[in-house]
Amino acid sequence: MNRQQLIQQIREKQSFLCVGLDPDIKKIPQCVIDECKEDLDTDEEYDESLAIILFNQYIIDATAPYCVAYKPNLAFYESLGARGLVAYEETVAYLRENYPNHFIIADAKRGDIGNTSAMYARSFFEGDTQVDALTVAPYMGEDSVSPFLGYEGKWVILLALTSNKGSHDFQLTEDIQGERLFEKVLKTSQQWGNADNMMYVVGATQGQMFEDIRKVAPRHFLLVPGVGAQGGSLEEVCKYGMLPDEIGLLVNSSRGIIFASQGENFAEVAAEKAKELQEQMAKIMQNNA
Amino acid sequence: MNRQQLIQQIREKQSFLCVGLDPDIKKIPQCVIDECKEDLDTDEEYDESLAIILFNQYIIDATAPYCVAYKPNLAFYESLGARGLVAYEETVAYLRENYPNHFIIADAKRGDIGNTSAMYARSFFEGDTQVDALTVAPYMGEDSVSPFLGYEGKWVILLALTSNKGSHDFQLTEDIQGERLFEKVLKTSQQWGNADNMMYVVGATQGQMFEDIRKVAPRHFLLVPGVGAQGGSLEEVCKYGMLPDEIGLLVNSSRGIIFASQGENFAEVAAEKAKELQEQMAKIMQNNA
Repeated sequence: MNRQQLIQQIREKQSFLCVGLDPDIKKIPQCVIDECKEDLDTDEEYDESLAIILFNQYIIDATAPYCVAYKPNLAFYESLGARGLVAYEETVAYLRENYPNHFIIADAKRGDIGNTSAMYARSFFEGDTQVDALTVAPYMGEDSVSPFLGYEGKWVILLALTSNKGSHDFQLTEDIQGERLFEKVLKTSQQWGNADNMMYVVGATQGQMFEDIRKVAPRHFLLVPGVGAQGGSLEEVCKYGMLPDEIGLLVNSSRGIIFASQGENFAEVAAEKAKELQEQMAKIMQNNA
Repeated sequence: MNRQQLIQQIREKQSFLCVGLDPDIKKIPQCVIDECKEDLDTDEEYDESLAIILFNQYIIDATAPYCVAYKPNLAFYESLGARGLVAYEETVAYLRENYPNHFIIADAKRGDIGNTSAMYARSFFEGDTQVDALTVAPYMGEDSVSPFLGYEGKWVILLALTSNKGSHDFQLTEDIQGERLFEKVLKTSQQWGNADNMMYVVGATQGQMFEDIRKVAPRHFLLVPGVGAQGGSLEEVCKYGMLPDEIGLLVNSSRGIIFASQGENFAEVAAEKAKELQEQMAKIMQNNA
């Protein structure tokens, strides 16, 4: 999906919400697990990856009207080994088939030497379960990132300023010119890609930083985790980070939506939570127009 | 495997060689693919992951006498999707069963916010296909790394100064005190872990830097890629990086061993290449004693 198509989706839906599909097996509602076990064929054995697939499908069906993007984080799938990866692939396939206008982000934070990053690019950007975007870690520099940039309509989402406490350990380190590492990442990486094939991760918990980031990356989309469970404010993010015409934000919520209820009403509650965020976003977009 | 056990292995084998199991499907010898196809049961279908499993087993059997560690890079497995991950798991299981004294490093360069890193830790350090060590990217700081440190006998191998060209983009950036980012990573991370549960990745292509690194990390094991195909020198690495008693180095070679020949003699040639490196290592260890 290219930039204009993404912006078009955001305008149509009045939403720049991304739903994080992080299905921690320990939090999947019991009713989903029970349904899975009931649905088994006689020669099939229950395994947790089946519950993840079914849970994701319920969450996707419930939240699709309110969001423009989904972001499965690979860690939650890999923790179940190869079967977990099947659950990831099935989830992507389900999205591709049923919701072709939703933007899919594989949150994998990959990055390796050039020939190895090229292998990762193949995993995520080719074949039946290809996604639109992949999160990438910048520490290893240009040749670890550029192999992901050669795919039309595909995106690198580079870590810049993350939402976690550890972001202070290195990302804020100032160099001799007073430039912080995340600013150097933003600037340097603009020699590799552009606002049509690269976005940045900027945590919502760093609200006051969005102004600084827009000075260095005025047009790039920002993927913003940390609203909700991690405590970031949507209003503050939009105040400083939103672009006047092209929005330029994808705001992610994971736990705050998908595990808002673990009862039998989990899908309805997830829909409500997504709708709440969408309505806030619509209001902000209208005020911003 | 703990530090003393690893050093013991190195002394017994007179080798600190790590063989990188990076089975690029495009380079697997045709004879392995043919054998795979011949061995199929009538109801089985050929897929590339089967060739990877068989290729790895040949390489492992051929090189095991000359190395102390194996390092599968996950990118090469993930590029085949869930089946590729099965090939990874089968490879680890084969090592565990047949070569329990070899140290296994999953080269995955993971790292995410705390609760997500904890999921990755579960993938790599628990269950039937657990490994001894995992490479981790430092950009997201303490809470992205520390979840991997709570496992007895398991290791984080943190990226410090990598072997690729892109390492110059950020890793050498000096802060106001003149400290380079990789030095800050080395120093800061020593507040999270110690020489018994943390190693560092330092590329062999950065030979002249080992002296600086030993000033900051005098006891830690260093995992050194870049000897061979990437052009690093074993002598230089050892001159500046080796510890007098405890060695403190694991030197990795991947392509230079596993794809030294793609003919029918690929396993013999891999063994020869591994043996050459082992003999060089034995000589260095004896001169160093």
